[in-house]
Amino acid sequence: MDRVINLDNAAATPLHPDVKKRMIDYLETTYANPSSQHSLGDLAAEALDIAREQVAALVGAEPREIVFGSGGTESINHAIKGVAFAKRDKGKHIITSNIEHNAVLRTLRALRLMDWRVTSLDVDEYGLVDPQAVAEAITDETVLITVMHANNEIGTVEPIAEIGAVARERKIVFHTDAVASAGLVPLDVKAMNVDLLSLAANQFYGPSGAGALYVKRGTALWPLLDGGVQEQNKRAGTQNMLGIVGLGVAAEIARAEMDKRAEHTRGLKGRMAAGLKKGIEHLIFNGHPEKCLPHLLSVSVGFIEGESMMIMLDEDGVAVTTRSACAAGALQASHVLLGIGLDFADAQGTLVFTFSPENTEADVDYVVEKLPPIVERLREMSPLYKK
Amino acid sequence: MDRVINLDNAAATPLHPDVKKRMIDYLETTYANPSSQHSLGDLAAEALDIAREQVAALVGAEPREIVFGSGGTESINHAIKGVAFAKRDKGKHIITSNIEHNAVLRTLRALRLMDWRVTSLDVDEYGLVDPQAVAEAITDETVLITVMHANNEIGTVEPIAEIGAVARERKIVFHTDAVASAGLVPLDVKAMNVDLLSLAANQFYGPSGAGALYVKRGTALWPLLDGGVQEQNKRAGTQNMLGIVGLGVAAEIARAEMDKRAEHTRGLKGRMAAGLKKGIEHLIFNGHPEKCLPHLLSVSVGFIEGESMMIMLDEDGVAVTTRSACAAGALQASHVLLGIGLDFADAQGTLVFTFSPENTEADVDYVVEKLPPIVERLREMSPLYKK
Repeated sequence: MDRVINLDNAAATPLHPDVKKRMIDYLETTYANPSSQHSLGDLAAEALDIAREQVAALVGAEPREIVFGSGGTESINHAIKGVAFAKRDKGKHIITSNIEHNAVLRTLRALRLMDWRVTSLDVDEYGLVDPQAVAEAITDETVLITVMHANNEIGTVEPIAEIGAVARERKIVFHTDAVASAGLVPLDVKAMNVDLLSLAANQFYGPSGAGALYVKRGTALWPLLDGGVQEQNKRAGTQNMLGIVGLGVAAEIARAEMDKRAEHTRGLKGRMAAGLKKGIEHLIFNGHPEKCLPHLLSVSVGFIEGESMMIMLDEDGVAVTTRSACAAGALQASHVLLGIGLDFADAQGTLVFTFSPENTEADVDYVVEKLPPIVERLREMSPLYKK
Repeated sequence: MDRVINLDNAAATPLHPDVKKRMIDYLETTYANPSSQHSLGDLAAEALDIAREQVAALVGAEPREIVFGSGGTESINHAIKGVAFAKRDKGKHIITSNIEHNAVLRTLRALRLMDWRVTSLDVDEYGLVDPQAVAEAITDETVLITVMHANNEIGTVEPIAEIGAVARERKIVFHTDAVASAGLVPLDVKAMNVDLLSLAANQFYGPSGAGALYVKRGTALWPLLDGGVQEQNKRAGTQNMLGIVGLGVAAEIARAEMDKRAEHTRGLKGRMAAGLKKGIEHLIFNGHPEKCLPHLLSVSVGFIEGESMMIMLDEDGVAVTTRSACAAGALQASHVLLGIGLDFADAQGTLVFTFSPENTEADVDYVVEKLPPIVERLREMSPLYKK
């Protein structure tokens, strides 16, 4: 494992050493159920309270507005289905964008099959949603607007505060999927005018299987998981204590180290872009050049397939992806890349690098050295390519 | 912590030492996403395969029939809502029993609000569901039968194979909530004639936050969590790898040690029942005397409140509960105890002991010594009690 250069940190960030330490400590000392009313339960309940404060602080929320769950996908499903079901008598229209994560898209697809109607908005060449288009899509039946904070494939950061202002003015519940950005860039639920925000620990050096949904006080929302009285009756089920403890610590560290991390990864991203540009012809860099995540670089390499590059880089000890891990195995071209106007061939030739604080300039230089000959070999075999 | 005698193992079993060891080992060495297509992902994918085989073996299923999730509540919600939504055009009638866990009851309550109809069957004084009553409740609209395998408050084990035979004959999907019993007593999904079975790791010395749903091949089921292609498109979201690894090891150990554990806890249960009977008057032992979980003892103590006993035992260093931890804080009398015919007062005076392999005869003897004077003191203060 030591020799793999991980440039696919969005799939799974390694645990921060302090997160790991706290999780092992919790594993070794505590096992109780935070809902138990005897003293054994108190220890777990305290750990839960601390984590809730840590996560709330990360997004500018009150601790009681944080609902823990099993990850980004659960929080997104909870937000969308929870509002849809709670408001089903008011109306069945939802507004979203064309470049959302599958957790949003497929949740909406399921609702469509149950008679909800969905307006999915076009984005511009950078992947930006136009707040004015959101305003124009609103009808009397609209009960929810869901637009991601930052795109997980191209890194573009959406004008959430502006969309939120539209939603607030029209009194429509607004959810943002911030899974790709929470813990990586500053978030403030009040400034963003959101009612619901989804996040996941495994995007900021916490564990997989733990996430949270911010629920603004007073938001009508059905549980996704019905049952016990956990999480203030908003999410039933005995909590994944170990994951939540890790999520809390990861949130606290992310808040403290955010600027430093962003500066470091932004430097690597720039170095990679410059290096690749120098060594490879016919590149397209995807996403907005400024309104973007600091640690994500998406590049489409003309005339060849991303998967072939990925496999050959893997043989050279570099982990990188062609798209989100959640979509791996789904053999279609990325709807995000098609959504920003790439043609099918360029979309298929895309690599996504996500950098972590553990990556170094040497990692970047290694890829800048290894990738051009790989591209050259693949292009030699490509029927599409002519020098 | 050392001095607390935990007799509330159903709320949170301590991790088996080997489970803890494997989880710490995983935490320290692996972090990747099993969906990633590069080598880093392979390590996680292998760990996932192993856990899937271990859990499948626990219930007599094929590995591909196991869908991992965040615990018992999620699996139950997935099973019930998943079938209801998938079959909504066929019919909207569901059959259940009066003594199900809140994860079943409240899921059905939510569906009721969306126009499903539910028939909830009475149970006898032991908590047994009558398979004939299930057969009689079936209509042309019935799409699902959901009856728990063993009750989590009184320990009664239901005639699942017989109910399953009815369901199979009438071609109706059958789910059993086996959260209270999986890992504790032998289960075989084929012999039980079930299509869906829910289980959770934290009932058999595995971690909280990890569970599984057995889905018989060919069962029509919508995802509860829509999104990525994980778990063969049945449950989206990056898996809680640490929890699943723990669940797998816990399942393997449970299978190997089941008989020994059951014998040990059955001995403690008998010793506790005999000891309490000797020291305290006006006791009712709840649940079926033979068709029952080996490790669970429910006893109603006349004229006083369970909560007061719980608090006083807690002061003496004994953790015990009045009902399931999931319902703690819900201030109603137990629907299970009312369902088997207890009056309100007796229901409120109930303690549930759940024993683990770590408990000893000395633990039991300590409670048998401490509880009678507690009961006496509380009865002296009780307006209901006259010697």
